[in-house]
Amino acid sequence: MALQARVIYDFNSENPGELSVKESEILSLVSDQDIDGWLEGSNSRGDRGLVPASYVEILGSNSTCAESRYSNVLAVGFDHLQNFSQPPPVGLPAYAAPLQQQQQQQNNNKQHSQGSDDDWDDDWDDSSTVADEAGTVGGRYLDSEGASTYRVTTYAGQRGNAIQTKSSATVGRNLNRFSTFVKSGGEAFVLGEASGFVKDGDKICVVMGPHGPEWQENPYPFSCTIDDPTRQTKFKGMKSYISYKLTPTHTQNQVSRRYKHFDWLYGRLAEKFPVISVPHLPEKQATGRFEEDFISKRRKGLIWWMNHMTSHPVLSKCDVFQHFLTCTDEKAWKQGKRKAEKDELVGANFFLTISPPPAPLDFQEVESKIDGFKTFTKRMDDSAMQLNATVSEFARKQMGGFRKEYQKVGMSFKALSQAFEMDQQTYSSGLNLAISFTGDAYEAIGEYFYEQPGKDLDPVMDLLALYQGHLANFPDVIHVQKGALTKVKESQKHVEEGKMDRAQADGINDRCNIISCATLAEIQHFHHIRVRDFKAQMQHYLQQQIAFFHKITGKLEEALQKYDNV
Amino acid sequence: MALQARVIYDFNSENPGELSVKESEILSLVSDQDIDGWLEGSNSRGDRGLVPASYVEILGSNSTCAESRYSNVLAVGFDHLQNFSQPPPVGLPAYAAPLQQQQQQQNNNKQHSQGSDDDWDDDWDDSSTVADEAGTVGGRYLDSEGASTYRVTTYAGQRGNAIQTKSSATVGRNLNRFSTFVKSGGEAFVLGEASGFVKDGDKICVVMGPHGPEWQENPYPFSCTIDDPTRQTKFKGMKSYISYKLTPTHTQNQVSRRYKHFDWLYGRLAEKFPVISVPHLPEKQATGRFEEDFISKRRKGLIWWMNHMTSHPVLSKCDVFQHFLTCTDEKAWKQGKRKAEKDELVGANFFLTISPPPAPLDFQEVESKIDGFKTFTKRMDDSAMQLNATVSEFARKQMGGFRKEYQKVGMSFKALSQAFEMDQQTYSSGLNLAISFTGDAYEAIGEYFYEQPGKDLDPVMDLLALYQGHLANFPDVIHVQKGALTKVKESQKHVEEGKMDRAQADGINDRCNIISCATLAEIQHFHHIRVRDFKAQMQHYLQQQIAFFHKITGKLEEALQKYDNV
Repeated sequence: MALQARVIYDFNSENPGELSVKESEILSLVSDQDIDGWLEGSNSRGDRGLVPASYVEILGSNSTCAESRYSNVLAVGFDHLQNFSQPPPVGLPAYAAPLQQQQQQQNNNKQHSQGSDDDWDDDWDDSSTVADEAGTVGGRYLDSEGASTYRVTTYAGQRGNAIQTKSSATVGRNLNRFSTFVKSGGEAFVLGEASGFVKDGDKICVVMGPHGPEWQENPYPFSCTIDDPTRQTKFKGMKSYISYKLTPTHTQNQVSRRYKHFDWLYGRLAEKFPVISVPHLPEKQATGRFEEDFISKRRKGLIWWMNHMTSHPVLSKCDVFQHFLTCTDEKAWKQGKRKAEKDELVGANFFLTISPPPAPLDFQEVESKIDGFKTFTKRMDDSAMQLNATVSEFARKQMGGFRKEYQKVGMSFKALSQAFEMDQQTYSSGLNLAISFTGDAYEAIGEYFYEQPGKDLDPVMDLLALYQGHLANFPDVIHVQKGALTKVKESQKHVEEGKMDRAQADGINDRCNIISCATLAEIQHFHHIRVRDFKAQMQHYLQQQIAFFHKITGKLEEALQKYDNV
Repeated sequence: MALQARVIYDFNSENPGELSVKESEILSLVSDQDIDGWLEGSNSRGDRGLVPASYVEILGSNSTCAESRYSNVLAVGFDHLQNFSQPPPVGLPAYAAPLQQQQQQQNNNKQHSQGSDDDWDDDWDDSSTVADEAGTVGGRYLDSEGASTYRVTTYAGQRGNAIQTKSSATVGRNLNRFSTFVKSGGEAFVLGEASGFVKDGDKICVVMGPHGPEWQENPYPFSCTIDDPTRQTKFKGMKSYISYKLTPTHTQNQVSRRYKHFDWLYGRLAEKFPVISVPHLPEKQATGRFEEDFISKRRKGLIWWMNHMTSHPVLSKCDVFQHFLTCTDEKAWKQGKRKAEKDELVGANFFLTISPPPAPLDFQEVESKIDGFKTFTKRMDDSAMQLNATVSEFARKQMGGFRKEYQKVGMSFKALSQAFEMDQQTYSSGLNLAISFTGDAYEAIGEYFYEQPGKDLDPVMDLLALYQGHLANFPDVIHVQKGALTKVKESQKHVEEGKMDRAQADGINDRCNIISCATLAEIQHFHHIRVRDFKAQMQHYLQQQIAFFHKITGKLEEALQKYDNV
């Protein structure tokens, strides 16, 4: 008897090669191993095609396919995490669970975005539908809102023999184990629980600039172009995806990447850098994944994203990003991917790599700056949201109402010229032609209004979207710094009460200084790119607007000339 | 006991000097003689002021004030019409009423727009409210829709001893005595019933042009400016009106005229010229008679009107128009006014003044031309109405939605610059200023959109309104010509049947030729000014639009420059 499955949800095929099925229908399967969440099978009428694995239940199995698939992923992909696989202790409240247990939970979560690593092509597929991406098939791709779940602390236990900060267990842990301060590793670092090997190449320097701490500039700045999104196919053409060509200026070697690769990279970066605002990827879109305008829009979003990545002194240099930008070999890619996923210098340990300026910061001044920045981000977020809403409505109006009005005027002029053509008077035919041309001109102007937002308002909205992503990151960044500062205050109190020795408190102080330096450097970087980007974008917008109104004027001047010979 | 009146309708004062009154209230009156539809009186609290005469009932009188006022007007103003004042015959159906009776009815109607003629200032007052103008107080000013009632035939009886066409009573009269053909005098003329003194100076020549019959050009063309609408007052400042300064180029003498004078003139012209399209006056407006924009709008409408008057070879030369343009003396004005109102060469008799080209027209060709023109006017009327609706909506959108969108964008930019001002970074203050300036620029552009329709779309609408007036006149013009042609066909049939002698039929033929020449000359003139006006107006519109978009571009370029120093 062939392998069979029972359909548990109705499924309507949306693409060639898919098979529409009804609940309770029995299918014959080619294999119980799904490929990218799809199973190949045939129905009772002999129609053959792909169905989502999560929509069927393989008969003779105790679990739904989604579950079996998940275990499959665990079996294949979790090999490097076996050291965390001991059963969790029982009887302890969640907030009291040891770091290991939290980490295991977080690594399990992380696994959803990592997937198996013994794949180059297949498992990187994003041919799943959007419904799949929201998690119904494999549940592997979290919504971008889930970004904070990437922030995990990789606890290296006692294995580290390079740098290990001294534990100061007398300053208590936060009770809320789900706060960003805890999850990001900020607390563990401040309390001296982080440890890891830090090579010279891993060192990240914060230097003192005119406005305070700054990231040391990347001495080898580069940029990266994203070109030629091409549609590629697999499953004998039944499934397709979009591949982007990336060419970094420092290698000049083109690499081919898909959105899913960007998504994986984003996950690694967000996990690794607790106080760095990793730019958000352009949003996944609900419809029209292969429509030209969507592909073009996503490409533009990725270009913006790439620009922010290469502009960032820390992000641009980091190994996983360099691997992403330069690797062309399949085997090397898998190695680099595994290495990145095993990176120890993430979360708490990331702070071990930071080399602060010699003079420690004045925490009172730091607090004031951070508070000011908090107010600033709130205001900027409000005004960016307002501008985004206004600009989006303005684009809608130009593409709808404005276009319609100009076209209606154009059509009315043309109707008038047609009425005038019935005048039996040859000497007005020049006028009739001129009025008809004027009508055409107004219809053309209507089209200009329709096309314009794509040239000027869309880039403004792309910019705002990117910055809204940053602004959404900063509360977490600030939270980590604030958490560290609170620990300093607690430790000072403990010293005054004789509960902690000064050396321990000094350690906390030093580590808070490191977090503060990194936070202020990141804020400084944010202001730097903000001013650069908004200046450039406002100039671009105004230039486009000027060109637009010039084009209208030119069309009208052309129409006006037609009256000269009347 | 003082003269008293009971208030029959609530009245709320809208201007200084008016008295608010309630229904049933008893007022003490200064006099039972109203001035321009207003009575002066005081209420029980001693408040004194003007109330509309039609809102009160004078006690001890059997009629409302409006009625007594009307008899008053008749008694004062109808002295020159006494020869028509015999009681109408009884027992005849309306369509069989003799010409005299019709004329009397029409003259009574006419009286509503003429008023008494022993006035220069008082009775020309248009200080009545718009409600008054619609007829509720004095009922003397008919709506412009009442234009056709101006078309009367002044029957001169047997008094004429100069030209008298021979009656051809055997071709029957139309049964519908209210048709334009009858009312205009066209029928009476064709049937040979018109007679009147025609001096050489009254002669109107139709000549043969390249496109058919044309009015002979005015050998002394002129134009007339309309400037300085000024507000003047009467009743010790309690009532006011607007006076326009007219300066014709052929006299260079300024005369002062009010809308009511124009209205009177329009009545005379519409009555006198059955197949000439007398331009309609700009509409009376329901509100804001003294608001700047209304005065300016009316003046523009009057300028258009004057332009069409002075451009017309027949209208520009006629006595009553010349009197209107040149008379500055009060006594001469009254004389000219009486003379115009007693003019015999109106309606049927107007045709006596027409001198056709030597060769008679081919009526078949005439019929085809007239039919073609009828189709043309229908199409032009439809497209003018459509264009008017579109343009009016376009103006509304620019002044509303477009302005709002640009202003919202401006405000959002300004909000962003305000948020950026909280960045604690002095090096971005240039950017903040530039963005703020951009916000101001967009707010200014919003205002440009608000102001623009007054400069370009309003003149288009004024032009369309004037032409819609002409297009509304032409069905009547065509009707007169068609009626004449029908009489020709009837007479030919009568001749064939031996019921009419050929000489009589030839007379009808000749008179139909005169009407046809005049009609085609008028159509020719219409096309001439149409092409001239639409060419000029389209050019003006496009020039204004070009200037508008240039202004926007200039503002944006100014904003763009602000980013240079950032």
